[in-house]
Amino acid sequence: MANFGNGPVMTPPEATCRCVTCGRPIPLDQAPGRPCESCGPVLGTTEVHYDLSRVHPDFGPPGRGLFRFAALLPVPDPGPRLPLLVGDTPLYDAPRLARRLGVAQVLLKDDGRNPSASLKDRASAVAVAHALALSRPVVAAASTGNAASSLALLAASAGLRAVLFVPADAPPPKVAQMMLAGATVVRVRGTYDQAFDVCALACERFGWYSRNTATNPVLAEGKKTVALEIAQACAWDPPDLVAVGVGDGCVFAALYKGFHELRALGLTPRIPRLVGVQAEGCAPLARAFAEGAATATPLREPSTYADSIRVGVPRDQVKALRAARASNGDLIAVPDDRIREAQRLLAREAGVLAEPAGAAGFAGLLHLAASGRLAARDRVAAVVSGHALKDVAGAMSAVPEQPLDIAPDPATIGSVMDAIGSII
Amino acid sequence: MANFGNGPVMTPPEATCRCVTCGRPIPLDQAPGRPCESCGPVLGTTEVHYDLSRVHPDFGPPGRGLFRFAALLPVPDPGPRLPLLVGDTPLYDAPRLARRLGVAQVLLKDDGRNPSASLKDRASAVAVAHALALSRPVVAAASTGNAASSLALLAASAGLRAVLFVPADAPPPKVAQMMLAGATVVRVRGTYDQAFDVCALACERFGWYSRNTATNPVLAEGKKTVALEIAQACAWDPPDLVAVGVGDGCVFAALYKGFHELRALGLTPRIPRLVGVQAEGCAPLARAFAEGAATATPLREPSTYADSIRVGVPRDQVKALRAARASNGDLIAVPDDRIREAQRLLAREAGVLAEPAGAAGFAGLLHLAASGRLAARDRVAAVVSGHALKDVAGAMSAVPEQPLDIAPDPATIGSVMDAIGSII
Repeated sequence: MANFGNGPVMTPPEATCRCVTCGRPIPLDQAPGRPCESCGPVLGTTEVHYDLSRVHPDFGPPGRGLFRFAALLPVPDPGPRLPLLVGDTPLYDAPRLARRLGVAQVLLKDDGRNPSASLKDRASAVAVAHALALSRPVVAAASTGNAASSLALLAASAGLRAVLFVPADAPPPKVAQMMLAGATVVRVRGTYDQAFDVCALACERFGWYSRNTATNPVLAEGKKTVALEIAQACAWDPPDLVAVGVGDGCVFAALYKGFHELRALGLTPRIPRLVGVQAEGCAPLARAFAEGAATATPLREPSTYADSIRVGVPRDQVKALRAARASNGDLIAVPDDRIREAQRLLAREAGVLAEPAGAAGFAGLLHLAASGRLAARDRVAAVVSGHALKDVAGAMSAVPEQPLDIAPDPATIGSVMDAIGSII
Repeated sequence: MANFGNGPVMTPPEATCRCVTCGRPIPLDQAPGRPCESCGPVLGTTEVHYDLSRVHPDFGPPGRGLFRFAALLPVPDPGPRLPLLVGDTPLYDAPRLARRLGVAQVLLKDDGRNPSASLKDRASAVAVAHALALSRPVVAAASTGNAASSLALLAASAGLRAVLFVPADAPPPKVAQMMLAGATVVRVRGTYDQAFDVCALACERFGWYSRNTATNPVLAEGKKTVALEIAQACAWDPPDLVAVGVGDGCVFAALYKGFHELRALGLTPRIPRLVGVQAEGCAPLARAFAEGAATATPLREPSTYADSIRVGVPRDQVKALRAARASNGDLIAVPDDRIREAQRLLAREAGVLAEPAGAAGFAGLLHLAASGRLAARDRVAAVVSGHALKDVAGAMSAVPEQPLDIAPDPATIGSVMDAIGSII
């Protein structure tokens, strides 16, 4: 790449991987795709740990992407082998939205500004770097769309092959991205959960590198960089509360991990309250959190227009529930219409285009404000995890207005003009 | 905004505006929307001039967007009144594409990474800054889509109202962006050219600020920043050749203006050969250039799948023809299938997602290479002016492959897996 230097290739810190429930160590190079055998796929998700006493966090300024955080990543900076600029997305101050919510500050982390227009590029970048380090030529994923289209693009940029498993209802724009990037796309006539199982089987059989949420602990390391960027942009004085949409729970858990490590390193004074936001028609984690349960009850027929968080069996539920509890945060559910309102407000009052799931975090802030749970002194943030163009039908459903149709003849133009002039 | 400082607000240089044909001065605050009365709409486009001897180009590093080039812009940096990060998009080195073209270097300027996913945000940002400086609360534009959706977003971010005139065939994703951002959208049942005329009438009648290509010379000032960024990223040693898709010709002409000013300032040693690329079904400027004509013959039924360059009457034809001639460049036409090939190659060999018009520049490089017009020592660049998600149908039409469909039952999975494994 030409306009952001690669800098020296950082040696990653000593990283170990452990089961989140029993603590059993699992070698990092075997971890992708494999949960802890004793604890199984739900309780046996794995997590990367570092000896933080040996980490020297010198991240440098924004501009060259997330591998500037290599001191807190389990894989080395791949340098020009992975040329796309991932991360270092804008964090906007949105004073009009702050007035609307009655808080001191609203910050918006616009992660739709990544290469494939989704936060998932952070995870894909670290996964592809890991596959490169392990000399694995094929990467695979199951996804409702964003993770797969992200992996397709990052793999293509690095010269790796991608095989992607999508559910039958994956939106055409996301499938189009994958195919355009040359991935082999396998559409599984079933749910995301079924596509996930087929993908796991294929990775096992063919030795493909698995970029699957929750089972591969390296992905959360990429996603946590969004927390590192938010904190750094706030001069290490992070917001009081950070909200984000929750499907599998992986982004939400990764936010916690990022903020937790920064505090453990002494870079920040506290961990923000983290609020995970689900759609009412698909809220197994919000329900489990409210009930104080250790795991979520699977939801057979999840329903929401926010397809990226339409997940009935959250793969990262153990870590997500822990993140909400340990941060004194919350997992809440909001109606789809609240998410539509958030899509409109983000665009109209801050100029940020969010896909439905990307607007869910801000919808959560609206919900908290409406129920009196935000204070006037609060500095709050929402992570916008994907761009509105990811789901045009979803964006259109958030718009109650219709375009005005006029004929280009002089007779009608005059009267139509007057009508427009009067409403402006 | 929180993660890129605004720096000091720069005072813009003394800027004058002149008719490109007769040189008549036109006050800059009256220029938006008004061509030179003596020369008319085609010959009488206007252009901003600076006393370059008084310009002190100290642009600073990338990161805070195009207003860091305020020393070469006609409007002051609006600071936090215009919070979106516009410009400072990545410039990628694409060695696999360089090998394919048989040249020393291929650079890709990924301008789909702007807020509305299009280079047009550069023009909209400067236009909105100008409207703010002139205290004009309503901005208007006619557009095939990208300019309008860009203006809608930038206006919303700055708290201005936007009225947008689109032709009947504007793609729904682009209309969706505009409506989501709260703009008043007027769909003119006719062509872009008819929508343009209606918009001009409305701006005249209501005093709205006109963000219309060619008639508003401030827009090219925003667009030229793409040249400034390319040159700066190359340490002021610009590529030998830069290619970009051409519709109205405004981006193409602005590239020339940017490179011209850099050379006049002594920052760069030369102006790259500039190659404007049109689609064969809509190539009035390529034809005029080949014929040595002073103006282009209007095309009544322009035809190409690349909707953003489907312009039968190029509004900025005088400046575009001058840019090709003065840079020892070219204006060429390529078939739509060449543009589709470019869309695939950009994604598959560089990880860059381009809409059809955004891939046209690289399609031009493919065309030049195929006809033996690129040398082994050449360093060439293509500007990717919009993201593939802007036009999903277009992206899909560039993909000959189909997804594999499988049922999630164990019996079929095994055989399908074997089939996939054998093709990877």
